[in-house]
Amino acid sequence: MLKNDLPGLNYSFRNPQRLQLALTHRSHGPINNERLEFLGDAIVGMVVAEILFNLHPDLPEGALTRLRAGVVRGETLADIAIGLDLSSYVRIGNAEKKSGTSRRRSILADTLEAVFAAVYLDGGYQEAVKVITELTRETIANLPDPEELKDPKTRLQEWLQARGREVPEYKIVSETGADHAKEFVVKCRLVDDPVSFSASGSSRRKAQQAAAVLMLDRLLNI
Amino acid sequence: MLKNDLPGLNYSFRNPQRLQLALTHRSHGPINNERLEFLGDAIVGMVVAEILFNLHPDLPEGALTRLRAGVVRGETLADIAIGLDLSSYVRIGNAEKKSGTSRRRSILADTLEAVFAAVYLDGGYQEAVKVITELTRETIANLPDPEELKDPKTRLQEWLQARGREVPEYKIVSETGADHAKEFVVKCRLVDDPVSFSASGSSRRKAQQAAAVLMLDRLLNI
Repeated sequence: MLKNDLPGLNYSFRNPQRLQLALTHRSHGPINNERLEFLGDAIVGMVVAEILFNLHPDLPEGALTRLRAGVVRGETLADIAIGLDLSSYVRIGNAEKKSGTSRRRSILADTLEAVFAAVYLDGGYQEAVKVITELTRETIANLPDPEELKDPKTRLQEWLQARGREVPEYKIVSETGADHAKEFVVKCRLVDDPVSFSASGSSRRKAQQAAAVLMLDRLLNI
Repeated sequence: MLKNDLPGLNYSFRNPQRLQLALTHRSHGPINNERLEFLGDAIVGMVVAEILFNLHPDLPEGALTRLRAGVVRGETLADIAIGLDLSSYVRIGNAEKKSGTSRRRSILADTLEAVFAAVYLDGGYQEAVKVITELTRETIANLPDPEELKDPKTRLQEWLQARGREVPEYKIVSETGADHAKEFVVKCRLVDDPVSFSASGSSRRKAQQAAAVLMLDRLLNI
């Protein structure tokens, strides 16, 4: 008989085949969890986005993005999967069983995403939210202080203001490439300083942030 | 009085301030739609993932990923936003009003994501699914044939098998970098052909796909 739950998941599957599929790595055969992993990746991204959105009503988008990346990256998901002892349940091919730690961790992270998708398909959105919220709670509680995650432009501006200096000026030096593959070059300069830094990015903002990093590095290391 | 709906959105806001906020670009002031955009990006990514997952039960994960990227990219969302006439409703600062087409399109795409998040917060997950499904229906119906989107390894294998030739061999040449920043180099070779190609990627699979592209290019151009 197929299992309809996993210790620590706190969810009972109505259809245990969904759980079985989620636990089946592609090295096991052609019917495997790859499609579920695709869906699960999107689900965990969204659920964690909402948790952080509600948890930090004052954080700007950039800091939320960085916090989220810390939760949904493979390394973190692998740790959660190991906490669930997923490696005792995942079905992988014999060749794959001999693979090294890093490969094994990546399989476990992918499997966890597939399990999230299986919960979603089996029990609906609210059940998936419950399971993901529970399993990411500790990680989210231990994220770095959002203050440290301020974007470089903000940090540069605050550093200057704290010293009574004027805010930096950002100027677009060039904008090249077709609409879907733009490249911006932005120059960052201070009114009271002859040194300027230019940097590129796929959007005006990204280029500004990259230029701010260079300026900030210099100011902090003078 | 604030508007509680937009023509074409087919959703009436219980709290019209949510819609108002979603329509407010950061150039308009410090209270703006940037945080909603963060959440909306995650929501549309998930809803479109599920639509494609259900629509194409036979497509592998790689093809689903490529199809989804075609729907959720800025260019596509900007077209949908223009179809909704969002530019008549978005509130932007005066300086921003003079910006060029490409910049304007990117603001509209971001605003549409913020509107999706506002619907989600106002009406819940199912309402967001309804709105996003409706607005992406035409785009999804006109996506390229999934057959053309097969990943390079699959296409290479099928090309060889159709000619009675053996499947290629992929071999890891090197694996460097720390766990979170791995770089793999993979060599792709054919048993009946002296030429091999090596390529790198952040995972074994990505490096294999990149090597398959090189091999496929050569075979198709001999």
